[in-house]
Parts: sequence; structure tokens; C-alpha cells
Amino acid sequence: MIAPVALAQDLLRCNSVTPADGGAQGVLIQALEGLGFTVTRLRFGEIENFFAERPGQGAHLCFAGHTDVVPPGEGWAHDPFAATEQDGIIYGRGAVDMKGGIAAFVSAASQVPGHVSLLITGDEEGEAKDGTVKVLEWMAEHGKIPDFCVVGEPTCRGRVGDVVKVGRRGSMNARISVPGRQGHAAYPHLADNAVHKLIPLLNELIGKKLDEGTPFFEPSSLQITSVDVGNPATNVIPALATAKLNIRFNDLHSGASLTAYLREALTRHAPDATLEVSISGEAFLTQPGKEIGALTGAIERVTGVTPEQNTGGGTSDARFISRYCPVAEFGLVGATMHKVDEAVPVADLRQLTEVYKALIMAFCA
Amino acid sequence: MIAPVALAQDLLRCNSVTPADGGAQGVLIQALEGLGFTVTRLRFGEIENFFAERPGQGAHLCFAGHTDVVPPGEGWAHDPFAATEQDGIIYGRGAVDMKGGIAAFVSAASQVPGHVSLLITGDEEGEAKDGTVKVLEWMAEHGKIPDFCVVGEPTCRGRVGDVVKVGRRGSMNARISVPGRQGHAAYPHLADNAVHKLIPLLNELIGKKLDEGTPFFEPSSLQITSVDVGNPATNVIPALATAKLNIRFNDLHSGASLTAYLREALTRHAPDATLEVSISGEAFLTQPGKEIGALTGAIERVTGVTPEQNTGGGTSDARFISRYCPVAEFGLVGATMHKVDEAVPVADLRQLTEVYKALIMAFCA
Repeated sequence: MIAPVALAQDLLRCNSVTPADGGAQGVLIQALEGLGFTVTRLRFGEIENFFAERPGQGAHLCFAGHTDVVPPGEGWAHDPFAATEQDGIIYGRGAVDMKGGIAAFVSAASQVPGHVSLLITGDEEGEAKDGTVKVLEWMAEHGKIPDFCVVGEPTCRGRVGDVVKVGRRGSMNARISVPGRQGHAAYPHLADNAVHKLIPLLNELIGKKLDEGTPFFEPSSLQITSVDVGNPATNVIPALATAKLNIRFNDLHSGASLTAYLREALTRHAPDATLEVSISGEAFLTQPGKEIGALTGAIERVTGVTPEQNTGGGTSDARFISRYCPVAEFGLVGATMHKVDEAVPVADLRQLTEVYKALIMAFCA
Repeated sequence: MIAPVALAQDLLRCNSVTPADGGAQGVLIQALEGLGFTVTRLRFGEIENFFAERPGQGAHLCFAGHTDVVPPGEGWAHDPFAATEQDGIIYGRGAVDMKGGIAAFVSAASQVPGHVSLLITGDEEGEAKDGTVKVLEWMAEHGKIPDFCVVGEPTCRGRVGDVVKVGRRGSMNARISVPGRQGHAAYPHLADNAVHKLIPLLNELIGKKLDEGTPFFEPSSLQITSVDVGNPATNVIPALATAKLNIRFNDLHSGASLTAYLREALTRHAPDATLEVSISGEAFLTQPGKEIGALTGAIERVTGVTPEQNTGGGTSDARFISRYCPVAEFGLVGATMHKVDEAVPVADLRQLTEVYKALIMAFCA
């Protein structure tokens, strides 16, 4: 059996600020091979990743995580890479995001049988292009796509068990450029004011609700992040006006449907305008079913808390996994993540280990 | 009697690009003193101006004009300061704007009696702050405000007599700055998007008509000349958005009434926004009456054309004169003004002289 606290401390002592590994994945691989896992190292570019699998009865449960951490920054009361324990709390960069979560899962797997695997990347806090996306491609090629994947991000708000993420909003950026014809402000009929075509378009976009939200998602949100003309002359009608938008959208929309929505509005207000879009991530939702049920049931049995099923926040690697299989996110309390003196209570690590044990037993049974 | 063509040529040979005088006012003063005018030179800063008056019977008619000209620019077929005559046309910078008009008025005054004066400035094409404004102050202090003033700007479109300007639109600029609270685009409820307050305000301003125009004025026009945020980050809600407007307005409005109009709209959409205004000129209209009647009657008798009474175009020194007395603008055909090879037909100069003669006789009678 592997103790979660000792493994978490071993991982925290590795300086693995993205893209460095600092020996963290070696610590994990040694532990997993000792438990009978077959480990395949998957280095892409300068990023270390691996896939580890232990055969077993029943459904295949995968745990996805990252060993890389964000830079510690200045002002820590504790060495960010010493994993100091004080009054039942372990301090270190990555304590909750998410070396603590990985240690809890490996400890759980060491205690109960079942067909489990780990997808571990070193590129989650960076560009995320040589990590989870490419490991998933390898897994698909080798028939290793699991029946359910749990991402160990720190989802909890106040105590272990209070929040499970069952999806994430999508995000896209758009840039609208409206051309006009320059002229003298005293003779507007001889010019075509680009701003006067852009403003009614933007006013319509911010005045319309994209949706009212869903049981699992907040309403989608469109924010105009910039409008720029840059005309220094007070008596000149400008020939070009641009606007930039960011849309955070739920699963009633896709990047493609919102692009079509914007293009339709453009066509009515400014047919000669140009639209450039960049889709950062599609929205996804893992529908209620036996996968989410196994996770929330395990949480309730261990912690006594019924978790809120939430889709808030930014993006995570779960958006890539959702293209292959049901995925949910559940881990430690995120209050200190990315902050100075990131820390995890020993009690939380032990409780999360119990939740993961209960999940493996329920899902792989 | 002074011949209009010879005087126009003498004036055109003086290089009087603003603020230089080039001897132009000396040429005029010598001619006027020879006709019995009392001339008061009025130099303000580096600008030469003068007021000249000849006592006489009846109402006091003032002719306002400027001896300064805009730079000739490149590409002339004729020396811009040689006043070359070719095929009945005199070429030179200022031929129609407005040394030709001044010569026509002086020639007219030399031929018929009447209480006439001249307000001559050298600062009309420049900042216009050391010219007409200050001469008018002097005239008011010395009891010299006339009963009617005619400004000799080149108002005509296709032939002498077709257009009289009886007023001008006003012009003002405004700058609106809307503050917000910066935040992450993923959490709009924690921020206050400055653009989202500015856009509905601007949309209202461009969607509302200020008026439908009047018998003498086109509808007023509001143009947004710039909107600027300058936010480079796609995931940040901006804290400040600014817009610049230019309004060209008729005599249903004033700079003050439009400032109040903008402020009321601001208060509803963005109470913490700031508004800065700069009023370049108020609208004015000389109502129909014996003054305009004397001018249009003279034009009709001499040319056979009923002039259009127009208020279009930018601003002129008439806006300053309108504060003191009835004012109208009438002069040569403006087609070549400010252009390369500015020119006046000799026949036009002679016809304008006849119109001014008929006006002096009718008004001062």
C-alpha cells in the first residue's frame, strides 16, 4: 500500500514548473510499476507525459492529471518545493493543483483492485498542446480509451466533496472589422461612417440573450472586449472601425453555431464587414448517468456531502477528454491554488483517497 | 473711379499667405483713402486688420473680407502671385477667395454714394482669433456696428448670383469617457464592462434624429468620429471606453442645448461617465427682411437670377458678425477656391461689382 501523504510530499519536492518535470513523473512511474501498472512514457516536444494501466475486472476507469505546476512567485512563508508539514497541513506549489490529487488516486489504486489507468501530462499549465491532446491520440490508436475519466483538478470550494465539475463552458474570440468611406464631418452624405454601422451591430449583440442557461450551465455571455477606431481628427468621418468579442458559451451552442450567429448579424448591419473567429474550446457536458452517479455516490458515502454539479470557471484538459469518453472533474479544495503558500490539509488528502477508493470499487465492480 | 480688375490684380500680386500681409492691406488703404474713407489700422498680435468708413446718407452697410490666402500648393500652370490674365480669366491665389470680391466692393463704392464701411482682416484662413472677432469688439466700442454686413466669400456655385448664404450651421465636438470595472471575461458578473454602457448610449445618439431640418437648414447631423478602448487582451473586460462626436447643427439648437441633450443621455446610460465639449461655432440665421431683401433684389436686377438662400458648408467669419448685426454672404463662384490655378473671369468681377453697386444704392438709400 502507498500512503497518500508520503507520495504527495515526494512529488511536491520535485520542481516541475511547466515545462520542467523535475523528476516528478519518475517518482510516480516507480510507484505505479511497483503496483503492477504497465507504463508507457510519451514524450512530445519538450514535454514528459505517460500512460499507465493496470488490467483488472470490470469497466475501465482512467484518472487524468498533471505533474507540472505554475511558478511559485515571491513571498512564501514555506519553501514551495520542501513539502513542509506543519499543524497537519502540507505546504508546496502543486499541493492541491494537483500533485495531492494524483497521490490520492495512486494510493487508492494501491488499496483496491479494478481496471484503472492514469493519463499524466506535464503541459496542463502551459500551452496544453504537447500533453493531454496527444496522449489521447495515442490512447485511441492503441485501444486504451476508458469508459470514464476523472480529472483530479481542485474542484472543491470549501470542503472535500462539495463540487464536482460535469462540464465546462466553451470560449471563443471574434474580431469584427467594418469598412466605411472617409469624409468630412460637415458632409456626412458624401461619406459612409464605419462607426455608425458597427454600433447598431454591437448594440444588438449585447442586447440579445444568447440563452437563459440550462440546469447545468449558466447563461452564455458575450463581452465586447475592445472597440477601436483611432481617429485623431475631429472633423473626419472614419473609414474603419473594429471590435473584439469574447463569448463564454454553454452546450446549447458551439463555436460553429456562434460564428454563424455573428455572421448573420454582420450581414444585416454591415454586409462588407469581415469576421475573424478563434475557438479556444467547445462547451461540453457529461450527461447524468452511471459514470457521474458512481462518482457522486462515492463522494456522498465517504464525505456525507451531496456535491453540486457545476460547469463554471475557465477551461481545463477535460475539454479534450470529453471528445473521447464521459469525463468529470473532482479533486481537492482549490482555495490556495496558484497562490502563495499553496497547501493541503493531511485530512483532506486522506478523505480524497477514500473517495477515489470508493469510486474504483463502485465503477470497476 | 476704381476699376475692379486692376485692383484685383494689384491685390493678387501681394503674397499674403496667412499670417503674412504682403502689402495687400496697404494697396487697399491707399485706394480707400483716395475715395474719402477714414481708415483705422487694427493690428492684433501678428495680424494686420483695418476698419474703413465713408460717411454718407442712409443706413450703414459694411463689407467684410479677408486679404489673407491659403498657401498656393504645387502644380500651378500660372504664377500664383502674378495675376496673369489669359483669355479673359485672371489667375492667382485668392482670385475668388476673396481678393476679387474685395476689389469688386471697393470699385462699387467708388462709383455710388452711401454710408459704407469695410472690415478687413488678415486672419480668416488661420485661427481667426486676432481678426474679425477683435475688429468687431473695436467697432462695438466705437459705435461702428453697421445696419447690415455682407461678407464677400465666394458663395456662388455655377454663376454669379445663384447662391446667397443667409446663415451657417454650428459645429461642436464632444468626448465621452465611460468608466467601468476591469475583470476576467469568464466572470462578467464580477466586472462592469465600460463598452457595454457606452454602446447603447452611442446607439441611441445615432438612432435619434436631432431635427428634420428647417426651411433654411438641412437636418442637424451627429457623427461619431472615434470610439477607443485599446484593450489588447481577449480575456479581459475593459475598465474605460471613450467616444468622440462631431455635431453640425442648425438654429433649432445651440452648443448649450446640445450639451444638455448629451448630458441627459449620459445620465441615463452611464451616470459616472464624463463629457467634455468644445463649441467651434454656434448656428446662426439672418431672418428674411429688408437686409436680405436688398441683397437678393440687387442680385436679381443685375444678373436676372433669383439666388438660392443657403446655409451649407463649414464655418466662416460671418458667425462672429451675426452676434452684432444682420449678416449675409455673397461673392464670386467658389469652384476654384483653395485649388491649384484659382481663377476669376473678368466678366464675373465686373458683374459682382454691379451687384454690389445695386446693393449700396438700394440699402443706403
